[in-house]
Amino acid sequence: MTRNEVTELIIAQKLRKQLTWPQLADAIGRSKEWTTAALLGQMTLNAEQAARIGAMLELPAEAIEQLQVVPYKGSLPTTVPADPLIYRFHELVNVYGTTFKALIHEEFGDGIMSAIDFSLDLQREPDPKGDRVRIVMSGKFLPYKSY
Amino acid sequence: MTRNEVTELIIAQKLRKQLTWPQLADAIGRSKEWTTAALLGQMTLNAEQAARIGAMLELPAEAIEQLQVVPYKGSLPTTVPADPLIYRFHELVNVYGTTFKALIHEEFGDGIMSAIDFSLDLQREPDPKGDRVRIVMSGKFLPYKSY
Amino acid sequence: MTRNEVTELIIAQKLRKQLTWPQLADAIGRSKEWTTAALLGQMTLNAEQAARIGAMLELPAEAIEQLQVVPYKGSLPTTVPADPLIYRFHELVNVYGTTFKALIHEEFGDGIMSAIDFSLDLQREPDPKGDRVRIVMSGKFLPYKSY
Amino acid sequence: MTRNEVTELIIAQKLRKQLTWPQLADAIGRSKEWTTAALLGQMTLNAEQAARIGAMLELPAEAIEQLQVVPYKGSLPTTVPADPLIYRFHELVNVYGTTFKALIHEEFGDGIMSAIDFSLDLQREPDPKGDRVRIVMSGKFLPYKSY
Amino acid sequence: MTRNEVTELIIAQKLRKQLTWPQLADAIGRSKEWTTAALLGQMTLNAEQAARIGAMLELPAEAIEQLQVVPYKGSLPTTVPADPLIYRFHELVNVYGTTFKALIHEEFGDGIMSAIDFSLDLQREPDPKGDRVRIVMSGKFLPYKSY
Amino acid sequence: MTRNEVTELIIAQKLRKQLTWPQLADAIGRSKEWTTAALLGQMTLNAEQAARIGAMLELPAEAIEQLQVVPYKGSLPTTVPADPLIYRFHELVNVYGTTFKALIHEEFGDGIMSAIDFSLDLQREPDPKGDRVRIVMSGKFLPYKSY
Amino acid sequence: MTRNEVTELIIAQKLRKQLTWPQLADAIGRSKEWTTAALLGQMTLNAEQAARIGAMLELPAEAIEQLQVVPYKGSLPTTVPADPLIYRFHELVNVYGTTFKALIHEEFGDGIMSAIDFSLDLQREPDPKGDRVRIVMSGKFLPYKSY
Amino acid sequence: MTRNEVTELIIAQKLRKQLTWPQLADAIGRSKEWTTAALLGQMTLNAEQAARIGAMLELPAEAIEQLQVVPYKGSLPTTVPADPLIYRFHELVNVYGTTFKALIHEEFGDGIMSAIDFSLDLQREPDPKGDRVRIVMSGKFLPYKSY
Amino acid sequence: MTRNEVTELIIAQKLRKQLTWPQLADAIGRSKEWTTAALLGQMTLNAEQAARIGAMLELPAEAIEQLQVVPYKGSLPTTVPADPLIYRFHELVNVYGTTFKALIHEEFGDGIMSAIDFSLDLQREPDPKGDRVRIVMSGKFLPYKSY
Amino acid sequence: MTRNEVTELIIAQKLRKQLTWPQLADAIGRSKEWTTAALLGQMTLNAEQAARIGAMLELPAEAIEQLQVVPYKGSLPTTVPADPLIYRFHELVNVYGTTFKALIHEEFGDGIMSAIDFSLDLQREPDPKGDRVRIVMSGKFLPYKSY
Repeated sequence: MTRNEVTELIIAQKLRKQLTWPQLADAIGRSKEWTTAALLGQMTLNAEQAARIGAMLELPAEAIEQLQVVPYKGSLPTTVPADPLIYRFHELVNVYGTTFKALIHEEFGDGIMSAIDFSLDLQREPDPKGDRVRIVMSGKFLPYKSY
Repeated sequence: MTRNEVTELIIAQKLRKQLTWPQLADAIGRSKEWTTAALLGQMTLNAEQAARIGAMLELPAEAIEQLQVVPYKGSLPTTVPADPLIYRFHELVNVYGTTFKALIHEEFGDGIMSAIDFSLDLQREPDPKGDRVRIVMSGKFLPYKSY
Repeated sequence: MTRNEVTELIIAQKLRKQLTWPQLADAIGRSKEWTTAALLGQMTLNAEQAARIGAMLELPAEAIEQLQVVPYKGSLPTTVPADPLIYRFHELVNVYGTTFKALIHEEFGDGIMSAIDFSLDLQREPDPKGDRVRIVMSGKFLPYKSY
Repeated sequence: MTRNEVTELIIAQKLRKQLTWPQLADAIGRSKEWTTAALLGQMTLNAEQAARIGAMLELPAEAIEQLQVVPYKGSLPTTVPADPLIYRFHELVNVYGTTFKALIHEEFGDGIMSAIDFSLDLQREPDPKGDRVRIVMSGKFLPYKSY
Repeated sequence: MTRNEVTELIIAQKLRKQLTWPQLADAIGRSKEWTTAALLGQMTLNAEQAARIGAMLELPAEAIEQLQVVPYKGSLPTTVPADPLIYRFHELVNVYGTTFKALIHEEFGDGIMSAIDFSLDLQREPDPKGDRVRIVMSGKFLPYKSY
Repeated sequence: MTRNEVTELIIAQKLRKQLTWPQLADAIGRSKEWTTAALLGQMTLNAEQAARIGAMLELPAEAIEQLQVVPYKGSLPTTVPADPLIYRFHELVNVYGTTFKALIHEEFGDGIMSAIDFSLDLQREPDPKGDRVRIVMSGKFLPYKSY
Repeated sequence: MTRNEVTELIIAQKLRKQLTWPQLADAIGRSKEWTTAALLGQMTLNAEQAARIGAMLELPAEAIEQLQVVPYKGSLPTTVPADPLIYRFHELVNVYGTTFKALIHEEFGDGIMSAIDFSLDLQREPDPKGDRVRIVMSGKFLPYKSY
Repeated sequence: MTRNEVTELIIAQKLRKQLTWPQLADAIGRSKEWTTAALLGQMTLNAEQAARIGAMLELPAEAIEQLQVVPYKGSLPTTVPADPLIYRFHELVNVYGTTFKALIHEEFGDGIMSAIDFSLDLQREPDPKGDRVRIVMSGKFLPYKSY
Repeated sequence: MTRNEVTELIIAQKLRKQLTWPQLADAIGRSKEWTTAALLGQMTLNAEQAARIGAMLELPAEAIEQLQVVPYKGSLPTTVPADPLIYRFHELVNVYGTTFKALIHEEFGDGIMSAIDFSLDLQREPDPKGDRVRIVMSGKFLPYKSY
Repeated sequence: MTRNEVTELIIAQKLRKQLTWPQLADAIGRSKEWTTAALLGQMTLNAEQAARIGAMLELPAEAIEQLQVVPYKGSLPTTVPADPLIYRFHELVNVYGTTFKALIHEEFGDGIMSAIDFSLDLQREPDPKGDRVRIVMSGKFLPYKSY
């Protein structure tokens, strides 16, 4: 059973049991963002988290075991994602990439925003002209140092 | 004079005059995020905005004219960006892309988060373990409709 | 059962039952364009639509369930499509892409034509020199706003 | 003087003289769609058309000569266009490509919609919920024949 | 059963029954070029042609059905073909592509040679210094028209 | 002066002097196909041929010298050609590539059609339904031999 | 059974029976270079050769049949080979490619070294500083001719 | 002056002075293969060699200096070379790559043939059926060792 | 059983038996770096090593046999690795590649650091600000020689 | 003056003045590894460092200014580097990438080795069988945390 097969099984079982991502997240006391990423094969659960998810989704032992192994990450089948929702994020990096770079360097100096020491929060933002998606990212600034 | 040359000239003049992106933004009453994107060739200024920026940076008339033309957008030289700071954003789309898709569809149904009716805010988040970069994105949800 | 397998099954069952795309569309009261896209894995049916299509094509329960899940979109196996019919559309974007951009920006200002708030109509246009394919696209203009 | 340089010169002169694409089209009695494509290096003018455009835009003789030569076509710098407006058309081919194929083959049999014996019309479609871009394409159906 | 599997089955059955492409072509009264392309998944047979081929090659009903469906065309696994025989044709396009363009435009004006209203003939050309492959292509010239 | 610059100069001078490819070919006693390919940087002229072409097109000595040097061949800027006329030939290789392979191997055994010991003839084929482009290719068959 | 499966079977059976490439080559009276290439799916055996190899490796009838069919050639899974041994040959083409071109053209004029009328010999070259691999290639020079 | 410009200058000067690669090689007492590679920007000359070549080709001091700097190697503009002569070598790696791997591993064990401790010899091989190009490569075998 | 399947089986069995890479390495008296690479399909075991690993992981005979065959190397599914940990190494080559080149050439002259006569050591480096990964690479310098 | 031009100027001036990388590094009290990377456009100098380097290499004021600006990083012209020395590092990532991943995760858990909080040391390692290149990398381990 490959990790991709575990991911496909989780999606199928979640559909069958009519569970939501926040319900799965609550069960292990983690945010819906981190939990969804973990169950889609991007993060690693500990033994207790894996057991709970396994029970809720009736996963076989082998799948529960795999959820505790660090996965080979990267969730997209092509470099430029064909799916319109995911493409919009690719476009944001394309259009705003140099803006991120200019503003972060001016504020912090040479370095990067960590994508590891990082958290994500996604909410519905009610708006009379049409509700909005609000995403807050927080990543530690890591400076390049001379040596 | 191509638009790329206008962008390079703006970067050089800003360095020479020791101006910051927020200073340029204040001069035209816009956010630093939108202004930086515009001056890096991704957004379009109106005549008054272009004139003010042109005066501050001592740009030639031809450059001021070009800032009012809708540019061919996309700020990155390669599909997978080589620059480490910008790559981290590419990685976030790669690692969290399917998470964005799963959570937005569960909350909103089929559709996308607009990258056009969209705004961006980037701040320093003080933290005793090392300051963080905080980015807030807000994009209108656009539903697919059947017809 | 993956979504691609659902799509292949639909194509095979449609062939076996000698149904046309307009017949399937009529059964759910939607246009043939939207219905075809949905059944080829690009749009999402509601429960009632999925049930009717499932009955007409004798699909298994699992397939009917999948038709109600938002798919990972993008219908083509390669970036430049090898199929001659689909390539002609790729060529149109290549030849007329900057024309679309120039005319829309001159008429509407900076922004895009939405591919989400969008509809499509495809008809046979009788012509004594050889019938023609007539395609009408209608997409909402979405302006970039400064903020 | 390469054809790309002719195109850049036309864009610069049009901006300087504050002419619109429809004005240039009217001057040669052709549609704004065809004229824009021609002036952006995708179609070929005859001697009279080239002379008129040359006069309006004050082009040098060499540029007027080049407008009468069949260009090497293809207006986009990358296979997947980075510009958001043009990308939406690429996305439409990606999402609706197999729909176009299915509907045209069902209606006409094996063959293609010509991208040569083809015309294009782009209009503003007023709409209280936000104006729309309306594009009508008409291409001759060309059947494959057995031999 | 996918179309690729139909193609593989045809190749295997043809080998087993020791039939040649011209024999298969004669059976349906078509040229060997068109028939080979059709049986390799690039053209569409009518019901009678499919039945005859099916009988000669002892194909299952499902395969005979599929031969009457317009295939997703394009017979090569990679953009630059690795197989030496097929590569030589790719090379000819690469070396003579601009020659084709220059001579056709000079003779016919702006337009293309159709690859749809097109026929192909391939013969052995005896030659004392070594026999030659002689290929005759005939495609309708389709002019671009201004509108 | 690079070879590409020689090619561009030849195209510009030919336009200025209103010469056709057949006229240039006649002047050196070669076919229009070979001559066009040579002048577009794909074949090598001898000293006498280069001198005559140089005189007709008023080329500088350096260009005449370069026409006698074997060029780095390959006339297309991208692997998949964007130009519609040249793309049709790419499509023919894609659609008929395995047909060429099947028919040539059945007739000749394992080997290739040479693209070096090769000639090309392109003619207008009058046709009441619209004139056609007729291309005859003749390439020596080269067998693979076991050793 | 695809040709790739035949190749994998040959490799597995050769391992099981502890046969070497030269032993297989001797059995059919051909060089080890040609025989290895043929058994790895790049050349075509005649009926007698296929039968002998089939007997030595205990191949099924279907595999013996396939060894007599001209394969779709090209033995590498990616354009730039990842395997270090094979990459070194790719690197040699990259580093010495223009050297091959310069020396062959200076010696022979315009043309190529045939990769079809070609033979290969690979030997161990004893050397006190470490044994060497010695490869001798011999390919017929094929001149481009004007016509 | 970049290294590419040095290479282009060398090619132009060699043409002007009607020198051959062997003549240049003799002048520095090295093989024509190594010398050609060095002058085409793939190897490094010592001071004396650079001075002699500089004198023969009348190169400026800056070029002579650059010939002594280790170049960024790789002589081809695209991964799959478009030039027919160089492509044939790429094809040989594609067709015979796994043969090289199989024979070298069987003879030597795990390791590679060095492309650094390597030499090359290219000769005309007279043959009544048409002269041949004979290339001898000799590279040290480097074993992988366990540690 | 392909080599990839052997690798997947090893990973699964190691997980099931709760063995670490150093434990497997100790069992065959080799470093953990070399052993891990070998078991992930990049190096070749001898008969004794393969037997011991096979016993510890309860591998079938066929897998033990395959571990003694030189594999087709290269462990990554895409040219630019999507996995964040592995990408960081790709980034180091991108950022420091020209630095490696500059420093090695200045110290050693023209040549390379061997990736074959090479060893690797990876250790935890305790650090009060957060432990570090320490990697020591040692590769023989191989000089290019003129000949 | 672009940053690439600054880099080229530095390389040319260093050659002219016969300075080594360690000499430049000593002048600013930094390691030769960091200094070389900075001068090749990958790191950022402070004002004092830039002034000293500028004096040693006689750089213009504009270049000294640019050395203090964070560069767009990434030093290689192609994704797979053509240069043999740099390619060997790419190969190491390809061959040992999954080994790095397996050993670091087993030792540290889920996370990465930082390429930012990172240092590099490159030394000649004398060896009677041929000197070796020894590279020590030290990067902070950054754990993924659940949230």
